[in-house]
Amino acid sequence: MEISFSQRAEGLKASEIRELLKLTEMPEIISFAGGLPAPELFPVKEMKKVMQNILDEDGIGTMQYSTTEGFKPLREIIANQRMVNSGVHVTGDDIIITSGSQQGIEFSAKMFVNEGDTIVCESPSYMGALNAFRAYRPKFTEIEMDENGMIIEKLEEELKKNKKVKMIYTIPDFQNPTGITMSDDRRKKLAELASKYKVPVIEDNPYGELIFEGTTHPSIKSFDKDGWVIYLGTYSKTFCPGFRIGWICASPEVLQKYVIIKQGADLQSSSLDQRATAKFMETYDLGKHIDDIKKVYGKRRTLMLRSIDEYFPKEIKHTNPYGGLFAWVELKEGLSSKKILEEALKEKVAYVPGGSFFPNGGRDNHFRLNYSCMSEEKIVEGIKRLGKVLYKYY
Amino acid sequence: MEISFSQRAEGLKASEIRELLKLTEMPEIISFAGGLPAPELFPVKEMKKVMQNILDEDGIGTMQYSTTEGFKPLREIIANQRMVNSGVHVTGDDIIITSGSQQGIEFSAKMFVNEGDTIVCESPSYMGALNAFRAYRPKFTEIEMDENGMIIEKLEEELKKNKKVKMIYTIPDFQNPTGITMSDDRRKKLAELASKYKVPVIEDNPYGELIFEGTTHPSIKSFDKDGWVIYLGTYSKTFCPGFRIGWICASPEVLQKYVIIKQGADLQSSSLDQRATAKFMETYDLGKHIDDIKKVYGKRRTLMLRSIDEYFPKEIKHTNPYGGLFAWVELKEGLSSKKILEEALKEKVAYVPGGSFFPNGGRDNHFRLNYSCMSEEKIVEGIKRLGKVLYKYY
Repeated sequence: MEISFSQRAEGLKASEIRELLKLTEMPEIISFAGGLPAPELFPVKEMKKVMQNILDEDGIGTMQYSTTEGFKPLREIIANQRMVNSGVHVTGDDIIITSGSQQGIEFSAKMFVNEGDTIVCESPSYMGALNAFRAYRPKFTEIEMDENGMIIEKLEEELKKNKKVKMIYTIPDFQNPTGITMSDDRRKKLAELASKYKVPVIEDNPYGELIFEGTTHPSIKSFDKDGWVIYLGTYSKTFCPGFRIGWICASPEVLQKYVIIKQGADLQSSSLDQRATAKFMETYDLGKHIDDIKKVYGKRRTLMLRSIDEYFPKEIKHTNPYGGLFAWVELKEGLSSKKILEEALKEKVAYVPGGSFFPNGGRDNHFRLNYSCMSEEKIVEGIKRLGKVLYKYY
Repeated sequence: MEISFSQRAEGLKASEIRELLKLTEMPEIISFAGGLPAPELFPVKEMKKVMQNILDEDGIGTMQYSTTEGFKPLREIIANQRMVNSGVHVTGDDIIITSGSQQGIEFSAKMFVNEGDTIVCESPSYMGALNAFRAYRPKFTEIEMDENGMIIEKLEEELKKNKKVKMIYTIPDFQNPTGITMSDDRRKKLAELASKYKVPVIEDNPYGELIFEGTTHPSIKSFDKDGWVIYLGTYSKTFCPGFRIGWICASPEVLQKYVIIKQGADLQSSSLDQRATAKFMETYDLGKHIDDIKKVYGKRRTLMLRSIDEYFPKEIKHTNPYGGLFAWVELKEGLSSKKILEEALKEKVAYVPGGSFFPNGGRDNHFRLNYSCMSEEKIVEGIKRLGKVLYKYY
């Protein structure tokens, strides 16, 4: 069979990393490679009630086709709860429901990027977004970060000189993979640059409310005056990811195009997932649930960073996330985290090698650690094992 | 705001028809414009038990991330039940779950079609597929149908002369919009042509099991010897559409690419929808449920066709579907079903004008009628009203 794929599909290869990560799923391995929320916090008992209620109240609505834009009560709840918490004041009409924020990510490249156009992102950035973007055959410009996120002066330099930049993709809060958070004044500045250079910003914010110290940062969207910022939200990390509920908040002109794209892509997100999520939010206090999550993740984060300081060679650098799911480790130049992973697996511990988070390649001397989905005991034991491996290189 | 969309997004316009159809949603209108399954047949009571069971048995699995390929037990059920009924003998490994068959449709264009390539389809074809394809900027070649479906000789002529045909899209069973069914020998011949000319066939089969007389036709895929036929299935019409569960059955090489595309598009379909659907299929007899649907739709179909013969001008032609949801009406040349719809709406009856089902335009002297979602009383009354309008033109 010599089947002829489109150029965009030819370019999509099964990820090498993904194959490697399959090994990490063996039960004896302590894996920091995942990005899963802690399942013991899922409100399973509450969902049993929720399901009965939605099927009793409108069983037919729960099983029938619905609008592409999404279930109106859920859109209102998102506007009034999650968007307000991000400092954005809109109504349900300014929101459409997507199947996770991943869908909003993919739609954005489809909407803004012709072949050969440039997408600007943080260096490094979320691998799943980069892979989704690649189908539209863009170029990537990576903008360096410091401890306050994307360095805005470097972004402006790029916007000045490169007229093919069609989209800026950023994860301002507890970024995947680094855990770094953009400062509030950079957020404001970024919104201004978007408007000045007429380039849309895709603000991907899955982790913003999982802040361990202080209160949620205002979103970039909250500084947006004329519609250049598109906000992607999701319940995957604050409620559960198995119900595929994310959303897009954007100006009416842009939102209308997203609706047409969604209609072609899958008609609508699950009526069941949408109603179950809405009913949960109406019946229970998600804020309290998020507080519970933050307590658990915050403790795990502290323990992981403390263990790194104790068991890793002193020269190794790491970020200090104060929210979210991930920490980022930098080894000395020349070391390959991909090669070291093979040794780590022998010691029954795993992480995600950093190379794939850099869209233009290189920089393999980093790796990502997840702390949300692991008992405290295993965090200490896993970091200890990893330290043992790393000492061979220092 | 002068936002710059990609060329593909520029080309996507909000459908004029869709705006018109919003009018059909007013309660006093008898609308044959929809394509909804009859909601009174949804197994709501059964789903209440199903939900409790899946949350009791594995609440965490129901709420957590899962694989892109889909929930393995559901893939097995689809292989063993639905695919066997289509004459295809595969395992769960040959199936991936999509969010409705609409997602499989969109993925197919993404996978096979470069800008300017040709997609071959029936004339007319499903508007929602044509719109999804358009984002990839193809050309369309429409192949004429007779009462046995796509005329295969005309298809072969096209394949011979046009080397840019990258995909053949067909709905062989009770086609949307015409209700026409492809004969078994044409199915066999189509599978042979795909292989001979090395062009993949996308067999979209949402209605095949809703056959009112006789047994389900063997799918085109059942005649496929070397992997050139890709089968898209869905539970939307046999179970319910609000749970977004469709599937792709294809050869391993092709299926692997679909998995990568799906991973970029939305990571996975809803864990909740997948488990609820699997549990329903394990607990209840979908075959019996389909029999109930067929009885109801079959009666409605008969009544609609009989009413057309009674109340429409005699010169007007219509198809004679023996399954599915739709009948197709042909007016004399020169009449515009779009214009006539405006008059029909005044008489409080609606249909979908036919023009948009022809990807290259024209042919507005047709319209589509849906009979699945309407009481028998309303079918008679609606066709009577429509006849009154049509008599003005005859």
